[in-house]
Amino acid sequence: MDERVREHADVLVDWSARVDPGDHVVVSVAEDAHDLGVAVAEALGERGAAVTTLYGSEEMTRAYLKGSEAATENARDEDGLDDPDSAAPGFPDPAVDRALFEAADVYLRLGGGRNTAATADVGRRTRRAYARTRQGVREARMDTDWVSTVHPTRSLAQQAGMAYGEYRDFVYDAVLRDWEALAGEMAEMKRVLDSGEEVRLRTEREDAPDTDVTMSIAGRTAVNSAASVAYDSHNLPSGEVFTAPYDAEGEVFFDVPMTIDATRVRNVRLVFEAGEVVEFAADSGEEALESVLETDPGARRLGELGIGMNRGIDRFTDSILFDEKMGDTVHLAVGRAYDACLPDGECGNESAVHVDMISDVSANSRLEIDGEVVQRNGTFRWEDGFEA
Amino acid sequence: MDERVREHADVLVDWSARVDPGDHVVVSVAEDAHDLGVAVAEALGERGAAVTTLYGSEEMTRAYLKGSEAATENARDEDGLDDPDSAAPGFPDPAVDRALFEAADVYLRLGGGRNTAATADVGRRTRRAYARTRQGVREARMDTDWVSTVHPTRSLAQQAGMAYGEYRDFVYDAVLRDWEALAGEMAEMKRVLDSGEEVRLRTEREDAPDTDVTMSIAGRTAVNSAASVAYDSHNLPSGEVFTAPYDAEGEVFFDVPMTIDATRVRNVRLVFEAGEVVEFAADSGEEALESVLETDPGARRLGELGIGMNRGIDRFTDSILFDEKMGDTVHLAVGRAYDACLPDGECGNESAVHVDMISDVSANSRLEIDGEVVQRNGTFRWEDGFEA
Repeated sequence: MDERVREHADVLVDWSARVDPGDHVVVSVAEDAHDLGVAVAEALGERGAAVTTLYGSEEMTRAYLKGSEAATENARDEDGLDDPDSAAPGFPDPAVDRALFEAADVYLRLGGGRNTAATADVGRRTRRAYARTRQGVREARMDTDWVSTVHPTRSLAQQAGMAYGEYRDFVYDAVLRDWEALAGEMAEMKRVLDSGEEVRLRTEREDAPDTDVTMSIAGRTAVNSAASVAYDSHNLPSGEVFTAPYDAEGEVFFDVPMTIDATRVRNVRLVFEAGEVVEFAADSGEEALESVLETDPGARRLGELGIGMNRGIDRFTDSILFDEKMGDTVHLAVGRAYDACLPDGECGNESAVHVDMISDVSANSRLEIDGEVVQRNGTFRWEDGFEA
Repeated sequence: MDERVREHADVLVDWSARVDPGDHVVVSVAEDAHDLGVAVAEALGERGAAVTTLYGSEEMTRAYLKGSEAATENARDEDGLDDPDSAAPGFPDPAVDRALFEAADVYLRLGGGRNTAATADVGRRTRRAYARTRQGVREARMDTDWVSTVHPTRSLAQQAGMAYGEYRDFVYDAVLRDWEALAGEMAEMKRVLDSGEEVRLRTEREDAPDTDVTMSIAGRTAVNSAASVAYDSHNLPSGEVFTAPYDAEGEVFFDVPMTIDATRVRNVRLVFEAGEVVEFAADSGEEALESVLETDPGARRLGELGIGMNRGIDRFTDSILFDEKMGDTVHLAVGRAYDACLPDGECGNESAVHVDMISDVSANSRLEIDGEVVQRNGTFRWEDGFEA
């Protein structure tokens, strides 16, 4: 086994999840994440934790959803109904999944399937109905010390347009970092966001629509996402600072391609009025975008503003886990806000979805907080070469 | 996908587990059982059940146990203790696993790993300590409508000494049967056992030690193991009739090889007095046998007497799931008795283990119940060619 797999497991268990003896840890292993699963199991045995192992197979999820669709289709044919809305399957209450996450202290998601398009042919209505049924499971999962990471697989290498060995190097360069040092660098950005009230992001390019959007962050707390639950950070790798904005006004153009529900989505443009998306467009995959926005009322409002600060990630690989952390990027998410950004007891934006969209801010861009420029053309004001 | 994989899934879900709409089903998928997992997920979607998927990886279990052993070893070195018993790891209470099985209606175990010796280097003391910790999980699992089956893998084909295609045919011939018809044939054997009080098994061969053992079955109820929870039968394939004997006296020779804790065990001989094993031997693997018998007091008493009646299984493949169902065999298990064989409210033999051992009774054998011969040389008294 590549020694880096063990190092990855150790970073995940110790730095990221802070596993203690006696902790109840649920590990979800994707189809091709077996080797990382083995290394994580060994580390958890060494730490004296209890382990429950889930199989995170997208092919099984797809089969289950297609089976549900087929049964619903048959029932509709028998009823002679032709209302298309009756075709959304009903799903039983996921009581077992909820019970297991409620009993867990820690959840480790080891991504790395065999096909990033494994669920491409599942209908959007089915996805939405399934996501709604599982909202309670998601909430129980997010109440644990959860961390999401990926094992480098051939499927993810292909998605990134990279050779397998090259992709493994990319992943381990991003994961096996000096997280304590990076956390220190990001603390500066958190201080700026925590004391700010209004954020304005502007980009002006000849080849793309302009971005000019303002949003309120007053009263919200930024997360220094240093890849550890000790920092309320739940991704490995990480390297972003994010908060929960509201009352967005203006328009945003997202030039970094992404994949939503196995559909490639490019060049998204959103227009916000009074905090809500009132207009949207995409050069491709617009239907997938529309489906997200229609999930529930919260899906049309912002849940996150994130500033990518991990300069160890040096290219887009069509994986949100890496892309949104890359230095010289800013991202916004529609949907659910993270509780860590909210004052105690206050509810932020609620939704069954959380979908991130990214803008490259390496050129022709300004990020202003309360009228002061904090980042111009990718350079922060505390860095060499910054021009106000 | 081989169409037989889908047929296997349908038999498992409908005939074996009797899954109803709204049932909460836990599916455990072994490392190479993915294709069967996909087919089962689709069937469960069609039936309107909820699904939770576990990863049944023996390599992860081995890694976890080795990690625990290493930590215990280190702690012992630091304490300067040299009592070898202190080297048995302590395991946290498996609260998550218990919670999930307590919330489940049905448990489907899809076996089929990558290496039947995957846990070969885990110490026996560790195995025993782990099994004891998990007794509550096992009990919660057995309170569900559970069914255990296997997907044919290259590893199991190798264990059986068969080519992969040949082994697939073997498995599907055993699994895809007319279970309703076989259940009718087995009902006769159940009637004989239910009305009987004492069983005597005798074999006399020139090349092997004799068997002559008697055991009581008075008050016990035999299970017509027709591969369905509707018959209190939890294996697919099945095809045996079994009960819970007690007060065994005499000696038994088991000539069918088996694998205990990844150790090959051959030619086991057990001597019983007043229901307990008082003497044991094996031509190979005797230590693995000893380890089983020392697990707890119940591990030295019988938990099962089973009569193999599935003549669709035509050879031994070193897999208890198939071997014990083969026609012309009788097996006994030390350890835990199944509740289905016991009068309501009565406790049978309790143990953390249940290990089956098989005798070929195709020649030079007699099975007597209350002094009457029921099977001689593999032929039952209701079959052509029977000689009393």
